[in-house]
Amino acid sequence: MIKAGIIGGTGYTGVELLRLLYNHPQVEVVAISSRSLDGKRVDSIFPSLIGQSELSFSLPDSDELNKCDIVFFATPHGVAMEGAGAFIAKGIKVIDLGADFRISDAKEWSKWYGIDHTQNELLASAVYGLPENNRDKVKNATLLANPGCYPTAVQLALKPLISNRLIHLDDIVADCKSGVSGAGRGANQATLLCETSESFKAYGVKGHRHYPEIKQELEIIAGQEVGLTFVPHLVPMIRGIHATIYVDLVDPSVDVRPYFEKAYSNENFVTILNEGVYPETRSVKSSNFCQISIQKIPNSNKLVIMSVIDNLVKGASGQAIQNMNIMFNLNENTGLEQIGLLP
Amino acid sequence: MIKAGIIGGTGYTGVELLRLLYNHPQVEVVAISSRSLDGKRVDSIFPSLIGQSELSFSLPDSDELNKCDIVFFATPHGVAMEGAGAFIAKGIKVIDLGADFRISDAKEWSKWYGIDHTQNELLASAVYGLPENNRDKVKNATLLANPGCYPTAVQLALKPLISNRLIHLDDIVADCKSGVSGAGRGANQATLLCETSESFKAYGVKGHRHYPEIKQELEIIAGQEVGLTFVPHLVPMIRGIHATIYVDLVDPSVDVRPYFEKAYSNENFVTILNEGVYPETRSVKSSNFCQISIQKIPNSNKLVIMSVIDNLVKGASGQAIQNMNIMFNLNENTGLEQIGLLP
Amino acid sequence: MIKAGIIGGTGYTGVELLRLLYNHPQVEVVAISSRSLDGKRVDSIFPSLIGQSELSFSLPDSDELNKCDIVFFATPHGVAMEGAGAFIAKGIKVIDLGADFRISDAKEWSKWYGIDHTQNELLASAVYGLPENNRDKVKNATLLANPGCYPTAVQLALKPLISNRLIHLDDIVADCKSGVSGAGRGANQATLLCETSESFKAYGVKGHRHYPEIKQELEIIAGQEVGLTFVPHLVPMIRGIHATIYVDLVDPSVDVRPYFEKAYSNENFVTILNEGVYPETRSVKSSNFCQISIQKIPNSNKLVIMSVIDNLVKGASGQAIQNMNIMFNLNENTGLEQIGLLP
Amino acid sequence: MIKAGIIGGTGYTGVELLRLLYNHPQVEVVAISSRSLDGKRVDSIFPSLIGQSELSFSLPDSDELNKCDIVFFATPHGVAMEGAGAFIAKGIKVIDLGADFRISDAKEWSKWYGIDHTQNELLASAVYGLPENNRDKVKNATLLANPGCYPTAVQLALKPLISNRLIHLDDIVADCKSGVSGAGRGANQATLLCETSESFKAYGVKGHRHYPEIKQELEIIAGQEVGLTFVPHLVPMIRGIHATIYVDLVDPSVDVRPYFEKAYSNENFVTILNEGVYPETRSVKSSNFCQISIQKIPNSNKLVIMSVIDNLVKGASGQAIQNMNIMFNLNENTGLEQIGLLP
Repeated sequence: MIKAGIIGGTGYTGVELLRLLYNHPQVEVVAISSRSLDGKRVDSIFPSLIGQSELSFSLPDSDELNKCDIVFFATPHGVAMEGAGAFIAKGIKVIDLGADFRISDAKEWSKWYGIDHTQNELLASAVYGLPENNRDKVKNATLLANPGCYPTAVQLALKPLISNRLIHLDDIVADCKSGVSGAGRGANQATLLCETSESFKAYGVKGHRHYPEIKQELEIIAGQEVGLTFVPHLVPMIRGIHATIYVDLVDPSVDVRPYFEKAYSNENFVTILNEGVYPETRSVKSSNFCQISIQKIPNSNKLVIMSVIDNLVKGASGQAIQNMNIMFNLNENTGLEQIGLLP
Repeated sequence: MIKAGIIGGTGYTGVELLRLLYNHPQVEVVAISSRSLDGKRVDSIFPSLIGQSELSFSLPDSDELNKCDIVFFATPHGVAMEGAGAFIAKGIKVIDLGADFRISDAKEWSKWYGIDHTQNELLASAVYGLPENNRDKVKNATLLANPGCYPTAVQLALKPLISNRLIHLDDIVADCKSGVSGAGRGANQATLLCETSESFKAYGVKGHRHYPEIKQELEIIAGQEVGLTFVPHLVPMIRGIHATIYVDLVDPSVDVRPYFEKAYSNENFVTILNEGVYPETRSVKSSNFCQISIQKIPNSNKLVIMSVIDNLVKGASGQAIQNMNIMFNLNENTGLEQIGLLP
Repeated sequence: MIKAGIIGGTGYTGVELLRLLYNHPQVEVVAISSRSLDGKRVDSIFPSLIGQSELSFSLPDSDELNKCDIVFFATPHGVAMEGAGAFIAKGIKVIDLGADFRISDAKEWSKWYGIDHTQNELLASAVYGLPENNRDKVKNATLLANPGCYPTAVQLALKPLISNRLIHLDDIVADCKSGVSGAGRGANQATLLCETSESFKAYGVKGHRHYPEIKQELEIIAGQEVGLTFVPHLVPMIRGIHATIYVDLVDPSVDVRPYFEKAYSNENFVTILNEGVYPETRSVKSSNFCQISIQKIPNSNKLVIMSVIDNLVKGASGQAIQNMNIMFNLNENTGLEQIGLLP
Repeated sequence: MIKAGIIGGTGYTGVELLRLLYNHPQVEVVAISSRSLDGKRVDSIFPSLIGQSELSFSLPDSDELNKCDIVFFATPHGVAMEGAGAFIAKGIKVIDLGADFRISDAKEWSKWYGIDHTQNELLASAVYGLPENNRDKVKNATLLANPGCYPTAVQLALKPLISNRLIHLDDIVADCKSGVSGAGRGANQATLLCETSESFKAYGVKGHRHYPEIKQELEIIAGQEVGLTFVPHLVPMIRGIHATIYVDLVDPSVDVRPYFEKAYSNENFVTILNEGVYPETRSVKSSNFCQISIQKIPNSNKLVIMSVIDNLVKGASGQAIQNMNIMFNLNENTGLEQIGLLP
């Protein structure tokens, strides 16, 4: 059994890690930390765990955490940056569900996250973990940067087009929509039910922290600069991300579907929908799947790609477990085979 | 492997059976029927199953169904009444998720369901399957009547009080609230999003089909007549039932908590919450659990009992699988150990 | 034109007062206060007011407020208690939408609100303003205590029964449900969309601050003690209150409908629904109406009364304006004749 | 008083017309028709009208309708096409909230709506009624085609850019999102609460009926062909449309804000939001306003324009009344000055 610990388990990615790891046949969750809730039972905060978990929150420096095989950071940015090194020094693998190791350029990271990056060496060693893109590197990772939710949905939608040079790279528009759980569990007027339900809005239009992450990764695939416009929106629902992506085909007479099918034929978690079927976020609710649809616009060289994920699963905790499975040479699907909840 | 079939798989209890049975290590779903969708792939109707199921709908008299070890009827009332006998004659066990065999008095059944009951012999042989109440009978059932959603929530909340004679039986008020999925997946103006969201209402106040079922079962526990007022309400959410039950204690100085704890100490799916903690329907969303809270009203002999279940799981498909596990001598929890989805 | 001011205008009752007062032909809103937002434009906080209001927040001691004819307190408890006197001393009428002057017994108030009541004289002079019950007193009020939302729904449902001695007074059960806006606009983890949507729960079962208010007012109507059980619940929607009330008829053969019709025949804002029609909260969304339905339970002496209001209108700001109209000898319906928003 | 009639009053635009017209000081609604509900009271279908309306549904050829000054068609496509002429022949003005007279090319209309257009003469006489664009023509209209909801939001967002030649016209992307009420009140599995809430999806990606309408009107403004990609999405909420529009500036150094401010400085119902403020659909819920925000993307020639309306008000019934006001020489804002409902 792999001994796993969670740092910062009071948010939505924390409880989602617990839900999925308790269902994982080869993992035992031995510790979960919270400074503010030290000593308190986890099921008193997350009543879905009543009868399912005897865990209590501990401090982040507890003995149990230091005996883990792997530690997940489900913390705000800046925490994993400072804390990951000590675990790695003890031979413990680290997966950061936050943003501290996603941007390889420390200056760029500082610009978007507002604090200096203090761990250049660790940053250089970190592997960005989108298995469908760089499974081989994930296999050998000690410190893994788990991708953001929007970047996951956008990269999976664009990879077959970019790597096969099928689209113009100077003008990609990613109009993305997220459920409210992406904003976290902190007390915040802006995400009250009465402020977000029965409404829809864009946010971060001028610049959002996932923009440099998406751009960096698309450019790695492309091997050149990419022109990207990224606008996130808030949907009045708990879970789900829907990316609607607009690109211009280099040759509008080319059928791009076979490129998608080939790219994902061996990928368990990515499905290409039939012609004319468009994805719904609810189809992947609670599951680690990504569903993608491609639609050529008639009389135009415009192609629309739509992709959906559950932001807390393939966009966070599920993908972290997928990465863990790869890092520990397990079957990549282990513990991730639950079917999505519908309705 | 137990071979299972589903009759009438196009509704919400049908797709929920699929979700749970695909997760069950000892069951293989071999057939699912729908007259209207014969030949159509199941995942074209329920896109959460894309990549997870190769099944197509068949007619209800398909060979595959007749080779099953167990058949689940997830049909409107009247269908199982006519169809169950043929399976039973072939030695196939039947679980009816509908109402055809829940009311032991055929005349009473006809009064509430508007058609004659044509199968008195089958009706007499049917076992009402609330495992926490009559596990022994379930064990030997050939034809099992799976309880309604409201009746499940109300019975689990009241059983320890009634069987221990702690309350007056002539005046029990059950104010119950259900998510909209309880109304089914049929095209219906009354359950459109625009008609049900951002609103709350009572319905069936003068009489609801679950009333005679609840009354019958409470009276079996009590061994005498019970005075019941039952008012169901519609909550603008997909899943969940919350029962708020008002009873008068025979002796207000008696602490009823120990009776609840004793009644459910060996029950995996029923949890008694700590004093002052009240259940939320979301805590059991997607899981087979029932959470119950007890609150004595100060300076009064009134006791309030609150219980929550997921109407599609413990209130339908999950309980059906729990019953199946008992009927086939499996561990009762098999395939039902997924943790609830929160948030 | 009546000059009106609002103290504490940053919450939901504040913005609702603005919406309704801007629609009132005989009122001019001259000031709205907020300590934290002094100087900030109101439409920067409430974007529904963009283009409709040039107001900015001021401090609570601004000159404009002191020149008003009426001041509304839309503040947490304790604020009106300290601030109302100074306005009244200047001849300015005061309506408190909060709880400071609702409970006539200062000790009882302190027990529920956790602080001492410092204004016994003011408290004695305050009029509890449910127009359908005590319009005459409202007419002459200088300091008006605007009722709570639950108390409004429950009193309107019970008044005809109690004042005509049709029910047993020792055992009234009020099972009430509220939208989330009742919990206010403050940053609060418990009322995040992700914590409240897709869920339903009871709260304050052991004791809620509206309990003594309901009990006090019912006892005034009854002229004797009343036995009340009150359980509030949270509904995943923004607006609306639904009260389901269970009482025992003294004489089950009496038809109570004529008593309701007589009681409210001259009341513009209270409607008795036809037999078999049950109220939906959405039917009164954004309006000052209360819809009431009565249902006798067959073969029982139990009567169920259902009433719905919009908690922010008839349950708060609309009722405050109705009271103001009476206090200023205007037609009681002025500014309150908008039809509810459906869907 | 203007005598108004409504043909087809059982849908959401019908009840919204009633809500707004009852609030209009110079209009009397004298008749509302429904073939299926002839003789039934309107408030039995729309309980928000209880106590507010004594109307009953009549047949579409009732005397009352023929005595109107204006008739609104709130019907599926094809109905106004056949019925408008008879009213116009009697000197009654007609506003069609449906699509029958929006597309000036009858063949193009037939292609998208699947039936022949039988009224070429009427079609030629119809005025497309977006007041902010062609108020003068509206003034003299006898037959007015009320714009679609998406077309309203998109045109208002683009008009200042196109008419001032500030953007490239060959590649405009309109990513639009609508609440579920846009799909109507008919019984339809696809718009059940359990099928649409907690989910987000695109639809009509390959072609939507509002596409030719938007294209036609943009091309009239531009005086040349326009390249448009239009993708509508369904948002889990009742009301609201949010358009996110991506265009390329001809000269990225030009500040486009003054062009927007100038274009709408005299328009009561269109507001340009401050820099960095993005619109929320809830800010215009229940009101006739359109709020627009402009955001230049840094280091790019891309401009993002966001606009929001209430699909049932500015996107349908409110705009119809605005057009009626112009056609009858009333103040354009009459009856439309209610402030939006927030929260």
